[in-house]
Amino acid sequence: MVILGIDPGFAITGYAVIKYENNNFKLLDCGAVNTKAGIPLPTRLASIYDDLSLLVSKYNPDFISVEELFFNQNVKTAINVAQGRGIALLVGAKNNKEVFEYTPLQVKQAVVGYGRADKKQVQQMVKAILNLKEIPKLDDITDAMAVGICHAHSYNILKKCR
Amino acid sequence: MVILGIDPGFAITGYAVIKYENNNFKLLDCGAVNTKAGIPLPTRLASIYDDLSLLVSKYNPDFISVEELFFNQNVKTAINVAQGRGIALLVGAKNNKEVFEYTPLQVKQAVVGYGRADKKQVQQMVKAILNLKEIPKLDDITDAMAVGICHAHSYNILKKCR
Repeated sequence: MVILGIDPGFAITGYAVIKYENNNFKLLDCGAVNTKAGIPLPTRLASIYDDLSLLVSKYNPDFISVEELFFNQNVKTAINVAQGRGIALLVGAKNNKEVFEYTPLQVKQAVVGYGRADKKQVQQMVKAILNLKEIPKLDDITDAMAVGICHAHSYNILKKCR
Repeated sequence: MVILGIDPGFAITGYAVIKYENNNFKLLDCGAVNTKAGIPLPTRLASIYDDLSLLVSKYNPDFISVEELFFNQNVKTAINVAQGRGIALLVGAKNNKEVFEYTPLQVKQAVVGYGRADKKQVQQMVKAILNLKEIPKLDDITDAMAVGICHAHSYNILKKCR
């Protein structure tokens, strides 16, 4: 299966396209949609929509896996990121893709095997699982890879329960 | 000018299409996009996108006026509403419409002339300005009317400053 993992954001939306077959992972593409400050908010959201839609057209993923937001402090930041996250979910719906959402805890549990793993542990596991030469410079990209991996693992378990 | 006023939301997105000419307001349409609980989040966001897009096609508004979110308590609610709000802004951008955003304070200031006006005062002023027989049952619709009126007033002032 091909999974588009998305770490939703506003200034930066991380993405990773991952192929998962016979318990093997292969990274097909990864990167980030950057939207520039100073550009009107609707235009920034449209560029997230357009860029993610292009990815869906190009790779035709079987699933889209999006990280859930977890905030306990800055509501303003939460609102901005949530606006971008809404766009990511919409891209899934408009392209008739099944969208799965995972909490940061579920992602860590699936990738590291431990829900309270720290960022470095997640990075190292993502690097090992996807056989990367180095850890991406942007955390948003690593997070997108992690939520993609999370879906592959979770979906396998889900299938066994069906 | 024709203004599409939107009170962004998630379960309920209020809208009002208002014509403003020679200092006269006329309500062309109003209502709410309701998305049902239990339906997947991406599908709910898509129905907000589709319904608002239809309104834009039907009335071809000159401007879209969207209320900004103000939350100081429940981050979870803020995140849900913000996801819906992102969709409303995207509809503007994808249809090449100018989108204006106003804070609740600016809306009250423009409609009632007093930024700390209460809900009843706003409702009464909206009713008077739009010459309504009665106040809409849903607050979300009245709020959409108010943010539409706010843009008409604010744009007039903006024009004078140019």
